[in-house]
Amino acid sequence: MPQFDETELTEAVVASFDDTPDPRLKHLMRELVRSLHDYVRRTGLTFEEWQKTIDFLTRTGQKCTPSRQEFILLSDVLGVSMLVDAVNHRERGGATETTVLGPFYVGEHKPMPHGADIAEGVEGERMYVQSRVTDLSGNPLAGVPVDVWHADDDGFYDSQKQSYAEEGPSLRARFVTDGDGRIAFRTILPCSYPIPIDGPVGELILASQRHPMRPAHVHFLVDAPGYEPLITHVFIEGDKYLESDAVFGVKDDLISTIELRDDAVMPDGRAASGPWHLMTYEFRLKPGRGAAPKPMMAAAE
Amino acid sequence: MPQFDETELTEAVVASFDDTPDPRLKHLMRELVRSLHDYVRRTGLTFEEWQKTIDFLTRTGQKCTPSRQEFILLSDVLGVSMLVDAVNHRERGGATETTVLGPFYVGEHKPMPHGADIAEGVEGERMYVQSRVTDLSGNPLAGVPVDVWHADDDGFYDSQKQSYAEEGPSLRARFVTDGDGRIAFRTILPCSYPIPIDGPVGELILASQRHPMRPAHVHFLVDAPGYEPLITHVFIEGDKYLESDAVFGVKDDLISTIELRDDAVMPDGRAASGPWHLMTYEFRLKPGRGAAPKPMMAAAE
Ligand SMILES: [Fe+2]
Ligand SMILES: [Fe+2]
Repeated sequence: MPQFDETELTEAVVASFDDTPDPRLKHLMRELVRSLHDYVRRTGLTFEEWQKTIDFLTRTGQKCTPSRQEFILLSDVLGVSMLVDAVNHRERGGATETTVLGPFYVGEHKPMPHGADIAEGVEGERMYVQSRVTDLSGNPLAGVPVDVWHADDDGFYDSQKQSYAEEGPSLRARFVTDGDGRIAFRTILPCSYPIPIDGPVGELILASQRHPMRPAHVHFLVDAPGYEPLITHVFIEGDKYLESDAVFGVKDDLISTIELRDDAVMPDGRAASGPWHLMTYEFRLKPGRGAAPKPMMAAAE
Repeated sequence: MPQFDETELTEAVVASFDDTPDPRLKHLMRELVRSLHDYVRRTGLTFEEWQKTIDFLTRTGQKCTPSRQEFILLSDVLGVSMLVDAVNHRERGGATETTVLGPFYVGEHKPMPHGADIAEGVEGERMYVQSRVTDLSGNPLAGVPVDVWHADDDGFYDSQKQSYAEEGPSLRARFVTDGDGRIAFRTILPCSYPIPIDGPVGELILASQRHPMRPAHVHFLVDAPGYEPLITHVFIEGDKYLESDAVFGVKDDLISTIELRDDAVMPDGRAASGPWHLMTYEFRLKPGRGAAPKPMMAAAE
């Protein structure tokens, strides 16, 4: 008779995965059991703490909707998302640095023409974004879809708002690089914003007296055939939260200087209505493959 | 500028919990970050595996209902529930061994008179259960509520069935010990049963080629003032799954010999209709305190 007591239990559970046909799943499960058991043993987790954890995880799952992914948010604030990113991008070799996908990528980005304004009707300081996608040698990559998304002046993504279902995307689009690897679009200057704190992850942030802020940024997902999909943000220099990003997503190389301009025309020759900001950032892709991530939203109830 | 790369990230996330006012929460979170990061680093978890994990956890939360707790089930099949139990009951000192609560404790057990049949209208081999609750010296404890619950002949708990909402509990009740610490009730012989495999946990069990069976048992929760709440099962000797319980809940001391009887009357003097089984098991409680667990069901949608 096995005795499932503290000394023999862990190896019994590890052994229960011995017949797993997929060797990688077997390895992941066996190591997961070792990690979880080590945690419980090391902390002497109480029954009440275990119950709170079960409750927390349950509510985290139930907070997920087609437009909200609370488990990604949890992974983000524990630095797990960023670490998964790091262990999978150990050698950049000059390619643009990667960072977390975040919970606001909802897929289905609508292609828009170069120069389009993705912030039509949205209040905020106007910004012109110009970018170029190249390989590691600086050769332009043409016809590459570039998904962009960012928060509005109040710190909300379109997908967080009722209007998304009614009016469609805002501050979110896809641009396809031209023959010289370039894209350009108009938008507003993003501002720093809090991660959503009205759910279980927010409870954790508040209970830990961590601040929930992310420094201002624009998300980019660049997915060229024959290259690693690039998931990244461009941050805005000078933001007060650059050193304490709630999801640990900042890297030096991703911080961009935004220029304040008062030129009467923007770089594509069209008129500006008042002062505007210019963001310029180039992406260098690493050869490789792999499907771009699909949005990880819970199925509609 | 902190660089949230592989080498500096973990300590940056650990440090983000430095201002947590509750020292225990601070410790648990810091250690959790270390454990999770160690796991990701050790396994080189891929982005796709991370996505599958997020999806798995989300679906696990969304599978929970007022009568189903899929996260407890996950904790159970990973041996975590049993380990939490073990680290919190290191010194038994002669007290009855504890085991997992399981996902089928729904609370609100209805008190029933001694000798009552909790299996009225339920098919199965008849069983008479007699038990006694004492302290560590064998002195009877009177007036102690004892919650009992077990599966039917098809391996289902009442809470898993539609009839629960319509007809109320079945194979589930509360008995209160008499002046001599005794309870007795009629029921059917439980059989081994599979844990629910129609959810994410079932997918994991199937993908691992583990069997989902639990050896036959009756659950008991004994909650006397001034004593540690006792959460345990009594298993039935000879069950073929005693050595490979899907949730690792078996301990030698919890296995009971069930006697097959053909006496015309049961121990309380009332007539038996055909052969019946006799289960006799005594519970010894350890002094202590602590609230009995509340059922951990998701709120109704
Ligand atoms: Fe963002
Ligand atoms: Fe059970």
